[in-house]
Amino acid sequence: MKPEKTFDFHIRKTWIQISKMYNELVSAQGLTTSVGMALLNIDIKEGIRSTALGPKMGMESTSLSRVLKSMEAQGLIHKVSDPNDKRSVVIRLTDAGISKRNIARRVVLDFNQSIAERIGEKRTQEFIHTMTEIGHIISEQK
Amino acid sequence: MKPEKTFDFHIRKTWIQISKMYNELVSAQGLTTSVGMALLNIDIKEGIRSTALGPKMGMESTSLSRVLKSMEAQGLIHKVSDPNDKRSVVIRLTDAGISKRNIARRVVLDFNQSIAERIGEKRTQEFIHTMTEIGHIISEQK
Repeated sequence: MKPEKTFDFHIRKTWIQISKMYNELVSAQGLTTSVGMALLNIDIKEGIRSTALGPKMGMESTSLSRVLKSMEAQGLIHKVSDPNDKRSVVIRLTDAGISKRNIARRVVLDFNQSIAERIGEKRTQEFIHTMTEIGHIISEQK
Repeated sequence: MKPEKTFDFHIRKTWIQISKMYNELVSAQGLTTSVGMALLNIDIKEGIRSTALGPKMGMESTSLSRVLKSMEAQGLIHKVSDPNDKRSVVIRLTDAGISKRNIARRVVLDFNQSIAERIGEKRTQEFIHTMTEIGHIISEQK
């Protein structure tokens, strides 16, 4: 089996291509792919508990801390204590964060729509089905 | 469009899952996913020019330098000057590198075969076709 024939080769390569493209599209706005992904995972109204964001993004806490620190320094987020549980922290978007989130959302939507239009509904469903099944195979191997 | 419906969400999430799984499977051997990927991209007999490895792996040179430094420290690779062009450097596997490469190869083959067996030839071809098309759409957007 040649590398070009493996699933992981295609998945990794395509993710790297997407990540680079997103970086190029949002860098003029002072954003990166990681910051954009984080913004999209924070609810505009409710914010998100800091402990929930890492698992949702599939990021380790050390990498995520770095991203959040930079987002706080850029004034995109602020941290407040959870009204229901004073020990935990909720990350909320600032107005600047909401505005940058809209930019990131537009970029993601445009790209995904261009794929969906090109390959059509049936192949889109099949693609998501296969990806989900690969996820199941990974879980079973653990 | 919800994040769970986007192509990038599935591609990123699945790559993170694969990368974590590979890390877990090879960490007992002192390897990481990045080191394993690098080993698999170095030809056993010919080695690889240092300038060719980054593009092949889709890695930026700063991240790759870190990986290569650690591989050299572990005695998995050594650098020699290219006999055809003294200014350029060829990375070659040591015996230990070849042995670790075989371990990485086994892990990658086993995982990919378990997917291929589960989803079958037709869906495998369709998956690779869709991934390739997504790559084309990215190129066109540049």
